[in-house]
Amino acid sequence: MRAHVPPTFAPCPLTLTSLAGLRAAGVRAGIKASGNPDVGLLVSDAPMSVAGIFTKNLFSAAPVRLSRRHLELSGGLARAVVVNSGNANACTGEDGERDAAAMAARVAEKLGCAPHEVLVASTGVIGHKLPMAKVLSGIDACVAELSSDVEAGRRFLAAIQTTDAFSKEAGEAAESGSLGAGGGPATPGFVVAGVAKGAGMIEPNMATMLAFVGTDAAATPEELRAAIGGIARVSFNAVHVDTHTSTNDMFLLFATGRRQAPSGEGGWGAAAARVAGRLAWLIARDGEGATKVTTIDVRGARDDRAADLVAREVARSALVRTALFGNDPNWGRFVSQVGNSEHVKDVSRLRCDLQGTTVFERGEPTKFDKTELSRRMAVDDVSLILDIGEGPGQARLMTSDLGYRYVEVNAEYTT
Amino acid sequence: MRAHVPPTFAPCPLTLTSLAGLRAAGVRAGIKASGNPDVGLLVSDAPMSVAGIFTKNLFSAAPVRLSRRHLELSGGLARAVVVNSGNANACTGEDGERDAAAMAARVAEKLGCAPHEVLVASTGVIGHKLPMAKVLSGIDACVAELSSDVEAGRRFLAAIQTTDAFSKEAGEAAESGSLGAGGGPATPGFVVAGVAKGAGMIEPNMATMLAFVGTDAAATPEELRAAIGGIARVSFNAVHVDTHTSTNDMFLLFATGRRQAPSGEGGWGAAAARVAGRLAWLIARDGEGATKVTTIDVRGARDDRAADLVAREVARSALVRTALFGNDPNWGRFVSQVGNSEHVKDVSRLRCDLQGTTVFERGEPTKFDKTELSRRMAVDDVSLILDIGEGPGQARLMTSDLGYRYVEVNAEYTT
Repeated sequence: MRAHVPPTFAPCPLTLTSLAGLRAAGVRAGIKASGNPDVGLLVSDAPMSVAGIFTKNLFSAAPVRLSRRHLELSGGLARAVVVNSGNANACTGEDGERDAAAMAARVAEKLGCAPHEVLVASTGVIGHKLPMAKVLSGIDACVAELSSDVEAGRRFLAAIQTTDAFSKEAGEAAESGSLGAGGGPATPGFVVAGVAKGAGMIEPNMATMLAFVGTDAAATPEELRAAIGGIARVSFNAVHVDTHTSTNDMFLLFATGRRQAPSGEGGWGAAAARVAGRLAWLIARDGEGATKVTTIDVRGARDDRAADLVAREVARSALVRTALFGNDPNWGRFVSQVGNSEHVKDVSRLRCDLQGTTVFERGEPTKFDKTELSRRMAVDDVSLILDIGEGPGQARLMTSDLGYRYVEVNAEYTT
Repeated sequence: MRAHVPPTFAPCPLTLTSLAGLRAAGVRAGIKASGNPDVGLLVSDAPMSVAGIFTKNLFSAAPVRLSRRHLELSGGLARAVVVNSGNANACTGEDGERDAAAMAARVAEKLGCAPHEVLVASTGVIGHKLPMAKVLSGIDACVAELSSDVEAGRRFLAAIQTTDAFSKEAGEAAESGSLGAGGGPATPGFVVAGVAKGAGMIEPNMATMLAFVGTDAAATPEELRAAIGGIARVSFNAVHVDTHTSTNDMFLLFATGRRQAPSGEGGWGAAAARVAGRLAWLIARDGEGATKVTTIDVRGARDDRAADLVAREVARSALVRTALFGNDPNWGRFVSQVGNSEHVKDVSRLRCDLQGTTVFERGEPTKFDKTELSRRMAVDDVSLILDIGEGPGQARLMTSDLGYRYVEVNAEYTT
């Protein structure tokens, strides 16, 4: 059994407070027994455009239902996002509904806006009522500490995390134009930045993916809603850790509108897709005890949808994921999973490339150097290509591997 | 990390040679590096009725395609089944086709029957050509040793195994009438017996489920074909170890026709379903490093198909399987998987019972004693009931758990 070493990444210079018009805070409210930060707040100086994607789990948590409703009521405008960690406020019945509403109301009261201009997210254990006295005083402390400093952005990020082994942030600054300090009129140049939390499912019950990606460019709620599906498709919806959407998953995309951005490839949309993609990769990398992220490219499927379904079948196979953990170029497990799929008709032209080496084609394994290829699999970022050769469809998915530490994290701290 | 202790079971008094009219053999042919038995043969004194269910994997192995073809040619009659272990003859191209045919031809020549009256099964590594000199001399040795002794049946079983931690056999003798020695005319009383091999997917590439269930009662090929789907549904198709159908999976149901059996509940069909169900449970129990089998009952689904799909989603969740390994009454993982399903509309009436204790109902966890329930989960056979309460559909599935040993078996012996 090998030791588990969390990876380290170079710090990202940009975070949410790098966006003009946005302030943040994060405090220790005492929700977590560990004493770690657990209430965070994002506030836009003026109403910002927001679009959201929420969990499809039928057990959606009270804050998820509230935020969805608030976005409908406001037409996609918000002043603030309040987040608590340590308690998901899920499976908590009517008390949960009331508590989520009370969080929004407290922020609205402090900021002098309408409650439906406040979005709420929670993450942590499920089936427990929120300790509201702590939550509300945490909100008050956040309001008092709001700042546009990078450090305030970092405190917000710390406050939304649960079992994350490392922080997940990403950002891009447009090359043209100066960014300047917030508060002035729209100038050329803009920032896209995002933070996320999530590392698969953790005790006692389940964990959540929360992602907040924003820009200080101008975008209407309609433009954000039109873009968010495509951004999620190549990022958070392309991550596989556990085949499991939690009760609290939430991805918000927002725009403070303080800067100008070109449309198209150089605009905020393409940058937001890259930022979200990086956050998604970091989530997969932090997948419960993961030692690497494998990017699975399925090509040559009947259509894109079939490619996506095949990629998911490969990614969710515990056999595939243990082989990746073991740095085992086990072509049989990879190709057999394709042969098992309902979405594939003919495997006679299937080719499988692992780290750039073809390991299987025309129905038989190739003669490759197993030891050498295994050595090249012992890295952070592995590429697995499955080219079916029966159509134009393609899809890409990022998956974590499955090793001893996955079992430890998910089984060992039991009652 | 806990030690892995393979379970022990009381030996089954009945095996395939308990069937009147059937002889068996198993020998060491040298295909396996370990020197363990690796060629087995079943021979019926007269043509027996046979029905088969074969892997749906598009990478079906040469012996699978051959046996399917032979059953079509013969109309479901066979004199012999020859099996080799240690090499699956899969992903072996045209050589593989020729080798499988040569195995059937050799048996046919020795027995004086047509090649299409011989069925062939293989299991072991894939992507390697069969060592045909060894295989053919193994067949010759089997023919020389054929016997109706119980010990010959056991040697056949030993010869079809690969990484199985224990032998899998089951049988029932009809209470009415004496069974007597083979060779006489049909008498009242009959036997149903079966053997299987399989323990999920093992290195270097994948392993196979082979199951042979027979009766000495009379049944036509048509009757067997009508019955086999229902038998598989409640047995081998209700087992979840890896969501993976291998290249070589095969289930044969046969009848030597030497005895009389009543139809209906006391007949061979019901007995075959019970025997196959027991073999399936044993396969789940032997699932790569498993410590227990959990029987998942989904009830109250829209219809039986929805229930089956929900049960499979629950069973394939690595989170659910690690919780079962950890004896963790983690209701959140179980119910959230139901809330995640496309095949469920409303979870407001969902109830979850674990080992007879209701742990979740009406949207919230119950107050149960976690420590005591965890203790009651530390057994061989765990019951998990998910009652959705939105319809009459139900399904049952048996799943292995997922612990350290699963990772070890599947990742640790790499190149």
